[in-house]
Amino acid sequence: MTLLAPDQLEAALRDIGARRYHRLHPFHELLHGGKCTKGQVQAWAVNRYYYQAMIPIKDASLIARCEDSAVRREWRSRLVDHDGERDGDGGIARWLRLTEGLGLDRDYVTSLRGLLPATRFAVDAYVRFVREKTLLEAIASSLTEMFSPQIISERMDGMLAGYSFVTREALAYFDQRPPQAARDADFALNYVKEHARTAVQQQTVLAALEFKCSVLWAMCDALHHAYVDPKDIPPGAFDPDVV
Amino acid sequence: MTLLAPDQLEAALRDIGARRYHRLHPFHELLHGGKCTKGQVQAWAVNRYYYQAMIPIKDASLIARCEDSAVRREWRSRLVDHDGERDGDGGIARWLRLTEGLGLDRDYVTSLRGLLPATRFAVDAYVRFVREKTLLEAIASSLTEMFSPQIISERMDGMLAGYSFVTREALAYFDQRPPQAARDADFALNYVKEHARTAVQQQTVLAALEFKCSVLWAMCDALHHAYVDPKDIPPGAFDPDVV
Repeated sequence: MTLLAPDQLEAALRDIGARRYHRLHPFHELLHGGKCTKGQVQAWAVNRYYYQAMIPIKDASLIARCEDSAVRREWRSRLVDHDGERDGDGGIARWLRLTEGLGLDRDYVTSLRGLLPATRFAVDAYVRFVREKTLLEAIASSLTEMFSPQIISERMDGMLAGYSFVTREALAYFDQRPPQAARDADFALNYVKEHARTAVQQQTVLAALEFKCSVLWAMCDALHHAYVDPKDIPPGAFDPDVV
Repeated sequence: MTLLAPDQLEAALRDIGARRYHRLHPFHELLHGGKCTKGQVQAWAVNRYYYQAMIPIKDASLIARCEDSAVRREWRSRLVDHDGERDGDGGIARWLRLTEGLGLDRDYVTSLRGLLPATRFAVDAYVRFVREKTLLEAIASSLTEMFSPQIISERMDGMLAGYSFVTREALAYFDQRPPQAARDADFALNYVKEHARTAVQQQTVLAALEFKCSVLWAMCDALHHAYVDPKDIPPGAFDPDVV
């Protein structure tokens, strides 16, 4: 292990994204290529809802262990992004407009009854990571946002072109995210470049981003297994042919 | 145990305040009556800083366990109150203006080196309570804010009248708090009145407020023991005659 210059650390983080970010997952190739059935798109939205719903809990968990008022203040904007300023505002509410646009009952989605167990395990592992690892690792685990503007633009273009049942209005969530993600990723990237001062700390930062990529990847694996190939839906999980 | 009507529960909570709130502590009688030495006022401000500094961590801990986006959004205003919107803004920054106004070095105060161990234990117990008890109990433990507008008004009047070394500017923290505390207490009181639906839940709510009163009382006890009577300052803690 050698100590990397801050820009080398950034390059190593970007390299992880280039190899491990869930944009590369076969399920996303199908989703963004217009190759999913409506039921598969619904299954994706139902499962991803849990991730969205837990993001403010993850971010508040990070704030709750941060002794620096200025960092807490900066991180608070993520709570605003996802919980909004009033009812119907914010990322979670916008995600529910997507699931509603896909014909899913709101109470069914928020009940989490249709969730794949593997989705829950992956998301819960992410929240636990943020609560239990060092603050540096918790912040580094958010760095998948460095890569999200690209996947969001591919997703919006691909889904609008590929699915007659997807409207621009239903995708309003993604309209808001790229500038938020870019702002958040800039802050987190600068933070880890400044605070990962030893080779060991830098390795934990890289491992944190790999971990987070694995969380997102595992969510895609679960969707693919349940709804694409071999289409083995676990008992109780969302079934497009039953709902 | 009988189930109380919501207004009976409120009356029982107010009764706890009337008997147990730290406004009644002998140390506060001295502090507000102009009977403290400057060193005793400094000791109070140094120790209370830790409470102020941990409040956003306590509140983020509560948000981090709350599944209701609307409650999280409401509770978020407490983070804004204490961490502010920018550098130098918010309750913690205003508390540091008080400690500076009392002639204390900012780095010394924020280093926590001068803290009484009992202050740290009491504040940490509060944070742990909010993290580990039910959400209902965590919210109920904030209800000392029902009683804070009165103590703040007594404190400001008493300290300005009683101490030549205390300026109105140094007490800016307290100018802001009464409307914030009243808004927060209203929300928390309505929450517990609505959500404490069984006699057992109501007892946990009452016990949570008693617990929180004990936290504040223990902080006063520690100050009194160390700086008033018998004036036994624990090793390493703030000593007005040394700083």
